[in-house]
Amino acid sequence: MITIVEVGLRDGLQNEDQILDTAIKREILDRLIRSGIRHMEVTSFVHPRWIPQLADAEQLAGDLPFHSAVTYRALVPNRKGLERALQSSVDEFAIFMSASETHNFKNINKSITETYPVLQEVVEEAIKHGKKVRGYVSTVFGCPYEGEVAISQVAKVCERLFQMGVYEVSLGDTIGVATPIQVKEVLKKLFTQFPAGSLAGHFHDTHGTGLANAYTALESGLTTLDTSFGGLGGCPYAPGAAGNLATEDLVYLLHGMGIETGIDLELLCETSAWVEQKLGKQLPSKVLKSIIGKKEQRGS
Amino acid sequence: MITIVEVGLRDGLQNEDQILDTAIKREILDRLIRSGIRHMEVTSFVHPRWIPQLADAEQLAGDLPFHSAVTYRALVPNRKGLERALQSSVDEFAIFMSASETHNFKNINKSITETYPVLQEVVEEAIKHGKKVRGYVSTVFGCPYEGEVAISQVAKVCERLFQMGVYEVSLGDTIGVATPIQVKEVLKKLFTQFPAGSLAGHFHDTHGTGLANAYTALESGLTTLDTSFGGLGGCPYAPGAAGNLATEDLVYLLHGMGIETGIDLELLCETSAWVEQKLGKQLPSKVLKSIIGKKEQRGS
Repeated sequence: MITIVEVGLRDGLQNEDQILDTAIKREILDRLIRSGIRHMEVTSFVHPRWIPQLADAEQLAGDLPFHSAVTYRALVPNRKGLERALQSSVDEFAIFMSASETHNFKNINKSITETYPVLQEVVEEAIKHGKKVRGYVSTVFGCPYEGEVAISQVAKVCERLFQMGVYEVSLGDTIGVATPIQVKEVLKKLFTQFPAGSLAGHFHDTHGTGLANAYTALESGLTTLDTSFGGLGGCPYAPGAAGNLATEDLVYLLHGMGIETGIDLELLCETSAWVEQKLGKQLPSKVLKSIIGKKEQRGS
Repeated sequence: MITIVEVGLRDGLQNEDQILDTAIKREILDRLIRSGIRHMEVTSFVHPRWIPQLADAEQLAGDLPFHSAVTYRALVPNRKGLERALQSSVDEFAIFMSASETHNFKNINKSITETYPVLQEVVEEAIKHGKKVRGYVSTVFGCPYEGEVAISQVAKVCERLFQMGVYEVSLGDTIGVATPIQVKEVLKKLFTQFPAGSLAGHFHDTHGTGLANAYTALESGLTTLDTSFGGLGGCPYAPGAAGNLATEDLVYLLHGMGIETGIDLELLCETSAWVEQKLGKQLPSKVLKSIIGKKEQRGS
């Protein structure tokens, strides 16, 4: 059983220049659920000044439609964000930091050591309120400022997050520089320290390697992957580049290998095509182009 | 050592609606060589009625610039095509057929059994003229008409082609439906019958799986892969879909894994970006978008 965490509404939209209305986001959310998505990150409670695309976190997440099988998640950066998040109907929270010092500082304005107590407070308080917390580690496979990142450093950050009480750590290839050989190596080492079921893969498709890395991760024993519908998003370090691995591309691969996901690929593609209209731009998923092309060819 | 066969000028262009001038093709060819491409399929000697995009085969291939390290190839469908090809300065020829009966018939207008003697004549004559011949087998991993294709059927076609005298068979995922698990399985079986060095992988990125399949093929022991610059091309069965696996995406992956290719990725991307201007459309390679995006960001 593979768990797909749909992060398009958060990681996708925060990297799109255009700001979508809350009503459109809500329709995307409804459509994603209808297409079979069950795990969804809907927004981030960072300060709206930092990510104006997600400034409507309260409105969007205040009153999420209840579906017994659906888990809604949101990013929470600190105590203030936690207070906002606790007022919402989000089921689970996620904290985040980087494995590399420079990226962590540029992103969070704190050193790695200074970040821990801030996150620790969030996790403790969240758990007190009965909320599970996921941890994100960025730049696991490479940093835009420092280049290579030592696996031992990644392991150290993961360990601290698990000690705080997160139930899962998602390993981010933030700038899409991982290769399958590296994925295999990093996971092999981390699996000696953490159970495979407690880790997730968060691959970006900046250089087209997202699916190859995701496949290698699955083959290595990982069972949870983060993706965004249509491949929505981008990369602040390479304008115009692709965003997260596309949910469609992963689902197509899994179905092709006989692994069920419960996701209706055609419905999902229709949602992405609808969002393309709203954004006035093409999304990078190749399965999306192929399935919409075939649909148009048969005139439906 | 991995051999990359650049097929953009043939397999790419024959799937583009727009017909490029011979002078532009010639400039692409020169630029590709400058970027480090050493194996290149330049055109096809099929009847111009079938592929008007390559109707200038004589003009383009009549007087190819000599580079001692560069091998030029061209597709040859039959005796007539061979006579045209023998007048050109192409170094090697390639014949083609499908592993599935229906696709072979729709493509060549002959049954598989009727196709063999036509190709046999081409190979014998070519060899008499001192030309090496490569074989292409289409629909190895799936047929748009018949669906699954038996590995035994693929093996049978490969065997016949080797018996004719081809030095290498390129296994085509014509509609981009292969999965890594299938690639592993197909290659494992074929390697019991044919040396790994006599086979090549020809993956299409119709569903974004091209690189994952190529990586799996390399890991399985294949050493030759066909790609097209920028991911040029498309799929007649899915209008708007991506074409061959992009050369850039494969080269990026190989370099990331420490495998040298002799290809200058930035020069190659500049060529693809130049062709995008000529075609007035974006090419699907993700590495292309990322590298051009970074270049523009740093204002160079």
